[in-house]
Amino acid sequence: MQLSIQSSPLYSNLLGDPELADLLNASSEVRALIDVEAALASAQSAVGMIPETVGADMTAALQQVVPDMASLSQGISDSGVVVPVLLVELQKHLPQELAQWLHWGATSQDIIDTATMLQVSHCVDLLENRLSQLLNALYSQSQTHASTLMAARTRTQLATPITLGLRIAQWAQPLIGLENELPALQAKVLKLQLGGAVGANTVMTPQAAEVAAHMANALQLSCVPSWHTDRSSIISLANWLLQICLHTGKLAKDLMIMSRSDIAEVKAGQTGGSSTMPHKANPVKSEMVVAMNTIAQALHAGICAAASPAEERDGASWTVEWVLLPQLIVTTGCALRHSVELIESVIAEKQRLQSSIDKNPQIMSEAASFALAQHMPRSEAQVLVKQALASKRPMHLALQEQSNFPVDWASVLDPRSVCTPCQQVSASIFALRAKT
Amino acid sequence: MQLSIQSSPLYSNLLGDPELADLLNASSEVRALIDVEAALASAQSAVGMIPETVGADMTAALQQVVPDMASLSQGISDSGVVVPVLLVELQKHLPQELAQWLHWGATSQDIIDTATMLQVSHCVDLLENRLSQLLNALYSQSQTHASTLMAARTRTQLATPITLGLRIAQWAQPLIGLENELPALQAKVLKLQLGGAVGANTVMTPQAAEVAAHMANALQLSCVPSWHTDRSSIISLANWLLQICLHTGKLAKDLMIMSRSDIAEVKAGQTGGSSTMPHKANPVKSEMVVAMNTIAQALHAGICAAASPAEERDGASWTVEWVLLPQLIVTTGCALRHSVELIESVIAEKQRLQSSIDKNPQIMSEAASFALAQHMPRSEAQVLVKQALASKRPMHLALQEQSNFPVDWASVLDPRSVCTPCQQVSASIFALRAKT
Amino acid sequence: MQLSIQSSPLYSNLLGDPELADLLNASSEVRALIDVEAALASAQSAVGMIPETVGADMTAALQQVVPDMASLSQGISDSGVVVPVLLVELQKHLPQELAQWLHWGATSQDIIDTATMLQVSHCVDLLENRLSQLLNALYSQSQTHASTLMAARTRTQLATPITLGLRIAQWAQPLIGLENELPALQAKVLKLQLGGAVGANTVMTPQAAEVAAHMANALQLSCVPSWHTDRSSIISLANWLLQICLHTGKLAKDLMIMSRSDIAEVKAGQTGGSSTMPHKANPVKSEMVVAMNTIAQALHAGICAAASPAEERDGASWTVEWVLLPQLIVTTGCALRHSVELIESVIAEKQRLQSSIDKNPQIMSEAASFALAQHMPRSEAQVLVKQALASKRPMHLALQEQSNFPVDWASVLDPRSVCTPCQQVSASIFALRAKT
Amino acid sequence: MQLSIQSSPLYSNLLGDPELADLLNASSEVRALIDVEAALASAQSAVGMIPETVGADMTAALQQVVPDMASLSQGISDSGVVVPVLLVELQKHLPQELAQWLHWGATSQDIIDTATMLQVSHCVDLLENRLSQLLNALYSQSQTHASTLMAARTRTQLATPITLGLRIAQWAQPLIGLENELPALQAKVLKLQLGGAVGANTVMTPQAAEVAAHMANALQLSCVPSWHTDRSSIISLANWLLQICLHTGKLAKDLMIMSRSDIAEVKAGQTGGSSTMPHKANPVKSEMVVAMNTIAQALHAGICAAASPAEERDGASWTVEWVLLPQLIVTTGCALRHSVELIESVIAEKQRLQSSIDKNPQIMSEAASFALAQHMPRSEAQVLVKQALASKRPMHLALQEQSNFPVDWASVLDPRSVCTPCQQVSASIFALRAKT
Repeated sequence: MQLSIQSSPLYSNLLGDPELADLLNASSEVRALIDVEAALASAQSAVGMIPETVGADMTAALQQVVPDMASLSQGISDSGVVVPVLLVELQKHLPQELAQWLHWGATSQDIIDTATMLQVSHCVDLLENRLSQLLNALYSQSQTHASTLMAARTRTQLATPITLGLRIAQWAQPLIGLENELPALQAKVLKLQLGGAVGANTVMTPQAAEVAAHMANALQLSCVPSWHTDRSSIISLANWLLQICLHTGKLAKDLMIMSRSDIAEVKAGQTGGSSTMPHKANPVKSEMVVAMNTIAQALHAGICAAASPAEERDGASWTVEWVLLPQLIVTTGCALRHSVELIESVIAEKQRLQSSIDKNPQIMSEAASFALAQHMPRSEAQVLVKQALASKRPMHLALQEQSNFPVDWASVLDPRSVCTPCQQVSASIFALRAKT
Repeated sequence: MQLSIQSSPLYSNLLGDPELADLLNASSEVRALIDVEAALASAQSAVGMIPETVGADMTAALQQVVPDMASLSQGISDSGVVVPVLLVELQKHLPQELAQWLHWGATSQDIIDTATMLQVSHCVDLLENRLSQLLNALYSQSQTHASTLMAARTRTQLATPITLGLRIAQWAQPLIGLENELPALQAKVLKLQLGGAVGANTVMTPQAAEVAAHMANALQLSCVPSWHTDRSSIISLANWLLQICLHTGKLAKDLMIMSRSDIAEVKAGQTGGSSTMPHKANPVKSEMVVAMNTIAQALHAGICAAASPAEERDGASWTVEWVLLPQLIVTTGCALRHSVELIESVIAEKQRLQSSIDKNPQIMSEAASFALAQHMPRSEAQVLVKQALASKRPMHLALQEQSNFPVDWASVLDPRSVCTPCQQVSASIFALRAKT
Repeated sequence: MQLSIQSSPLYSNLLGDPELADLLNASSEVRALIDVEAALASAQSAVGMIPETVGADMTAALQQVVPDMASLSQGISDSGVVVPVLLVELQKHLPQELAQWLHWGATSQDIIDTATMLQVSHCVDLLENRLSQLLNALYSQSQTHASTLMAARTRTQLATPITLGLRIAQWAQPLIGLENELPALQAKVLKLQLGGAVGANTVMTPQAAEVAAHMANALQLSCVPSWHTDRSSIISLANWLLQICLHTGKLAKDLMIMSRSDIAEVKAGQTGGSSTMPHKANPVKSEMVVAMNTIAQALHAGICAAASPAEERDGASWTVEWVLLPQLIVTTGCALRHSVELIESVIAEKQRLQSSIDKNPQIMSEAASFALAQHMPRSEAQVLVKQALASKRPMHLALQEQSNFPVDWASVLDPRSVCTPCQQVSASIFALRAKT
Repeated sequence: MQLSIQSSPLYSNLLGDPELADLLNASSEVRALIDVEAALASAQSAVGMIPETVGADMTAALQQVVPDMASLSQGISDSGVVVPVLLVELQKHLPQELAQWLHWGATSQDIIDTATMLQVSHCVDLLENRLSQLLNALYSQSQTHASTLMAARTRTQLATPITLGLRIAQWAQPLIGLENELPALQAKVLKLQLGGAVGANTVMTPQAAEVAAHMANALQLSCVPSWHTDRSSIISLANWLLQICLHTGKLAKDLMIMSRSDIAEVKAGQTGGSSTMPHKANPVKSEMVVAMNTIAQALHAGICAAASPAEERDGASWTVEWVLLPQLIVTTGCALRHSVELIESVIAEKQRLQSSIDKNPQIMSEAASFALAQHMPRSEAQVLVKQALASKRPMHLALQEQSNFPVDWASVLDPRSVCTPCQQVSASIFALRAKT
């Protein structure tokens, strides 16, 4: 048992996401905070609120500063927030004529929320790339298996045949929606926070809007009214992240079923041996994606519980985001990372797939009943099909004997007839993808 | 303690939503299911999959049918789903030549999910109207109190002055976002479900797409590939509903604070007396909105936990939606309903509001420190302001004595100076509203 | 889609619990509230706080009263709580000399929380009975299948043989713990609430403790200090209920796997047909128990979110319990009810069970490796076993050829060797049951 | 924004728990795992399952080993579990005659779950100590303020007077229950895990029970049947931890209200300054405890979602515990740590406390109405009291004028009359504490 196991050297490759972790470590955080302070000063210089040269000089001076971590730690414990002590540290490295203008009119939350958005922006770029990779892999495997028949299962029971390509396309379907939403999400989520002490930017009045526009432009964030207590962009981000986990969780859960020893129709990501059973090949990567789904739901619920902050700013709610949001990002990254490897490694065991169809002629019974229903009441057709199944004889023979309608049973009972509709549905799913 | 208290005759007005409840009762459900079967037959007639006249005849015949509820109950217990028994019941009322074509090629989930979307559509219309009312009320109260000063509080402490109008505008801010998103949400969520047994619509091939287009058009739903296991539209709806509750929860929580006996700066929705204390006026409506927020979060988490269904269809996940989604809709409706009444009933107790400012001159200390910082290092300015506060003398006198800079203290320390920035921010918030 | 579907005439048998619902309807609630008021007056008469005859007279008078539901509804909407309006209604039916002493010194929460405990008490009795039935059924099936071999699965892979009796015993294991905990839980949870307006019972001082003791005794509840803001008994109850759902959820999830068409080693509760596929037999009851587990987790989380009420009494938190707790009770009842039927209906398909073992000789590979490890390094033994498996020859032949140690391979590779250890573990599990 | 912020050097003192973190780092985990392997060998030697000297020799040899972390990391990524690669690493350091017997008949989960229990045991000892400290502090402050009057608040409104000592006692009440439950909890939770590959301990048969008894004794854990899929001890632990957070969350929430600038009746843990407002003193520690409550609820929900593992062992569920359980332990530790400091630092601002009573004579209105009700119908008494309040005259005068009953108004309206009942209730609460 380890605290912070997702960033543990032992477990981060299994349970975390080393690339995202790099964007979310202490130095990335501090760097983002300093960048925001620099951008604030630059914007204020640009609009003439503080002396014209301060912006550039401050930016240059802050570029070099590496604050003392021990001092930061103590200050954070005292004030519950990093900014006051960070300002003290930065001012130590600045000449008085610059120190004077540092953090002019801003509040801690302006700096922290904006810095968070800078970090989120980098993380989302990385996740976007992963999602794109995953959708490419899904498309490619769906194409590869466009004619690979398999038995569909509904409510755990063999249903009718489909193609493996269709099942894979259906895994992609909700993820395509999330990819398509990403540009709008980025525009909505990645926002400058600038409200001053209580959201009204009184100290910067009447140039507040102008300062915000400059800052937002420099930091490539949207410019909106201060959102200290409007956490909807955090929630929108969390919703998107959770949905990635919900949908990758579905494909991983399916792969866990498909790769059961009992079924073994597909292999994917089964790297795990047992400490005592020589023959085992555990579906480690699928299990991890399923686990990330469960974890993500818990983290998301916690973030929502903190989304109704009181009055003008609320320390108890805000802190919850600090703990849970970066975990949710990394949990999502981990789910996507393993999913890409899972999908790229999918191997169809065609003999097993075919055998599930061959040994279960009943999966053509819906088709048989509709063929008969062209000639007789459907309820009677269903009874007749059930009798044919119960006879345990080859289905086409049993049906032929029990009815004398001119049905081409070879064709009706041929599972390959599903290929065309499955390919059409698969194509219509991938056609939804805006980015190709 | 009552099961289903939100629809209890005793409590529905407090904890539920009678208008929405009407859209979500047994007869509304059954009606929606029958309407979908009728639309299916009509679409199939239109494309020539079933005889040309069946669609219209079936629609007419089904219009009259009221199925026997006791039979439905038994059938639901057996199969875990309403459709098979409903078909049996409907067929009893149909001539054989129509009964034959009922539910042709569809699966239970096609009918139930589509019927749910019809019900959702009506519910969302009602919620949209409520949200609109709420935003109108917020706008009106924000205007009314555009110059009503109040002490902002950050992290429970008196901060600086703002206007009550700004606080109200900030309540509106995330709700405006949700109103603006609604047309896109409706387009995304309100989707026809039509996939047949396993999502490939094999029985309806090659006319499946054409049937779907007809049905979708008739039912005013979007036409997309079958989404049996892609629950993203349910999740998107749940996300939107939850966010309504998160954000109304925030305004209600604030009103509970503002209307505390200790503060009493605002009155709203305080209808509740005590069974033993003659002087009490409990903030019943605010409490209910806060309670709905907590409840909605729980329901939402449950819906998410069911959003990764296995294989082609998953009975265990799907059932969870049946229990929790209508509750989440009604919980949201209840939150909006009480919020409208709360906001419309807001009364500002101006004397109390003003007194919180007058008795706490320290709330102008930020302004004082920035005024001084034009003439001296800001850190020294902050020290000087703290000394002035500690002196317990009138602040402008203390500051004048301790510094001899040419500061117009009367103006700097006048809380009314915040009105302009607050009005500007409020205006910029309401300007975001697309619908006016 | 239906609001309050768990109490809907159509769905209550599938998704609810009609027996528990009867204990949790409007008239049960009102009856319990009136009983508490009567007990309060009786206790106060007994200790001489109010006139000696009032207790008995009040009890007799209240016995008859059926308050007007429409009046209650209006009063509840106004005050957010049923007690004030209920008192008004009751007083209408009482002579002045009794009405005077009704609710003397109590607060609404005293009456409601105590009435809830009375209802909880009846519900827990019923659940206890169900749990007992379930454990009896599990014991009986475990005995029946004490020698029924099956392939254990770990991490979705065939592992080694066990008996079906052991798997069933392991389903019972955590439920036995919950049954054993029940007496302590009842003592802890079923508590009188009596604190007066703010928990100090000032109006009843100095007889408060004496009144409480009388009331608790009459109502068969524990007597503890007022717990208006100590919701630990609600949480303890909710924890117990949730755990029932977690553990029945496990057995139902296993049954869904075991009864998959692909595996079909066990049949249980498969009543569900399809609306379009004549051959389907969906595992309806198992699915419902799994669904109840998901729902229970959501409800439990909501109850926890309301367990930190503010100050002396907190309307917003309390209300959440009203909505979610009865649902959690019924959800648990539904899970238990279906579980009993599921377990009683378990049928082992012995041929399928045996065939999973026969076709997978690798499930004896752990046994083989330990037999060899008595004679050679275990890591080498594991390699040798893997080679034997890879040879695709009968395992005992391959092992004999590859090693010449004096191992009795027939005995080592006989899966029936697991029966004794499995029976011992099963026996040790059921030996934990306190109540037999 | 930082991943794993609770163990970040910058934030661990604010958001984590450095003492607990030490018990939950990589080396503590690896040490615990090795200790379990040593205990297994020792037990097996003791019962003669493996050579007599192996146990002691293995224990001695393993004492020295520090496995290579890079190798562990790679192995964990492959198999999803630390044990297989740890065994390879350990065997490198063991002579063949010992290596042979390492991990004899056990499965990875036996080792990991048992090691977790060893770590949990140390953590719970530490938490027990903290809880004890907290209850001591609460008792001491409750005694100190046994006669400090304050206005109780119910549903945000001024109610009647109580003592600060009673409110503090009520904070203690549920925590006393949790302390009292601890010995039973430890007995229940701290269990040896030993089941072998599938829970039947077949390899160790017939000495399995004997081995388990030896191991349990040596490791000071309970000896019970294998609980691979019975996660009830994890859930019981998680329930206890969550309840600590729920109840400390309540006291912290109350302190946030009591220390609002508007109320300022109590000071506690207000260390936080603002980056822009010189006069602020934010309630940092209270906020953190409230935040920990929210976080703990999310983590707990995730652990419950993993408590219904499938079949004999379930990788996807188990992994969730690894991520969330240590976080829940640390979150609870953090809540307790700050709570101790908060309570120890409580300072009553007596003037403010008294003034809330003096300025609000209506808080004696319940007392007045009961005094009058001895002489007239209580409903009329309540009306009369409301009139007295409305008259805005000193209450005793208004009441005297409006009624001529022989009531000693000075005594009835004296708030100090609540001291005795409050002290009695406080005493009865602390009398519940088993450990003193």
